[in-house]
Amino acid sequence: MILCDVGNSSFHFDNNGEIYTQSVETFNPSQILEDVYFICVNPHVIGLLNGLCNWINLADFIDMSKYYETMGIDRIIACEAVDNAIVIDAGSAITVDIVKNGCFEGGFIYPGVKAMQETYANISSRLDYSFNFECDLDIMPKNSQDAITYGFVRTFYTEVMSHGMPIVLTGGDALKFKKIFKEAKVDKELIFSGMKKIIQKVQPC
Amino acid sequence: MILCDVGNSSFHFDNNGEIYTQSVETFNPSQILEDVYFICVNPHVIGLLNGLCNWINLADFIDMSKYYETMGIDRIIACEAVDNAIVIDAGSAITVDIVKNGCFEGGFIYPGVKAMQETYANISSRLDYSFNFECDLDIMPKNSQDAITYGFVRTFYTEVMSHGMPIVLTGGDALKFKKIFKEAKVDKELIFSGMKKIIQKVQPC
Repeated sequence: MILCDVGNSSFHFDNNGEIYTQSVETFNPSQILEDVYFICVNPHVIGLLNGLCNWINLADFIDMSKYYETMGIDRIIACEAVDNAIVIDAGSAITVDIVKNGCFEGGFIYPGVKAMQETYANISSRLDYSFNFECDLDIMPKNSQDAITYGFVRTFYTEVMSHGMPIVLTGGDALKFKKIFKEAKVDKELIFSGMKKIIQKVQPC
Repeated sequence: MILCDVGNSSFHFDNNGEIYTQSVETFNPSQILEDVYFICVNPHVIGLLNGLCNWINLADFIDMSKYYETMGIDRIIACEAVDNAIVIDAGSAITVDIVKNGCFEGGFIYPGVKAMQETYANISSRLDYSFNFECDLDIMPKNSQDAITYGFVRTFYTEVMSHGMPIVLTGGDALKFKKIFKEAKVDKELIFSGMKKIIQKVQPC
């Protein structure tokens, strides 16, 4: 079974467990003749894929009334993958979504690591530091690097922990946040788990 | 008594209670003949002021060992103004400093409203919203504007409130945050209060 998560710049494949990526710029999806179950956040690619009868859009099998209109399909599929958890997808933005008994309860969006580092650097060259994910966030900072790390990470940590739920981390920066959320489960392929769960539910043929 | 808080772009005066501003570009500080007690974060202006014998730098009367080396003098003076409080100075950056029994316990730095709004907009045009300071932050968001407002404001609120201390708000965006920190005291002239407190302590002549 071939699964594909189409982002803004890449096709991410799970081809029977083999994970690989192709560039949106160069990859021609019509070269695949087998069935491909996909989701797509890329407005330029989705029209092309919808015109290929072996590319099956899993968005068509989701009860969208559970979510909100402008919510990305990748975020929705990550929610579908869990029953009771707070899902943190740490990418260019960090989305945080709460699912209780299989129901989406709402979520929020926080800037990603790279975006936030640039934000501090743009405010002042004196705040142009990398975040220190090893920093002890139980101590109030007394230096600039820890002061911005605390500002970015500790505020986020305190809010997430206040919900008292199991945490699932995914996305490119999942392992950085695992240093902070020590009890969290990391699942880099959460999207593919969500996609498989939907396929099993609806058994499209 | 004339007090002056020199920032990167302006001289902020408290002239016997009259508050006004002059541009760093055009104002000539040597035209004032009376004594002026000042603090200055502007590296280009401080040399000039130190050469004027009636401009008295209050930084010289602070026990800097209580603070850290790269901490701005404006942040230090705001801490000197309080005995037991968490001081939030909401400007281009938001500094949050804890003072217990007159001792600085540490602090953190969070991006300001304008910087954070630009950060979301730069991540995606779909996140290009103003923050909604009227939003009910006890509800998990189900739309994009509330999702970024919650990401920016609620994470910050939860962390600040976790310290269980009286809150003093200052800086250009103090009134926006007063909508969130309903019990906080707003003191737009906290820096001048801190400066007066130091003058009373040391009585320089």
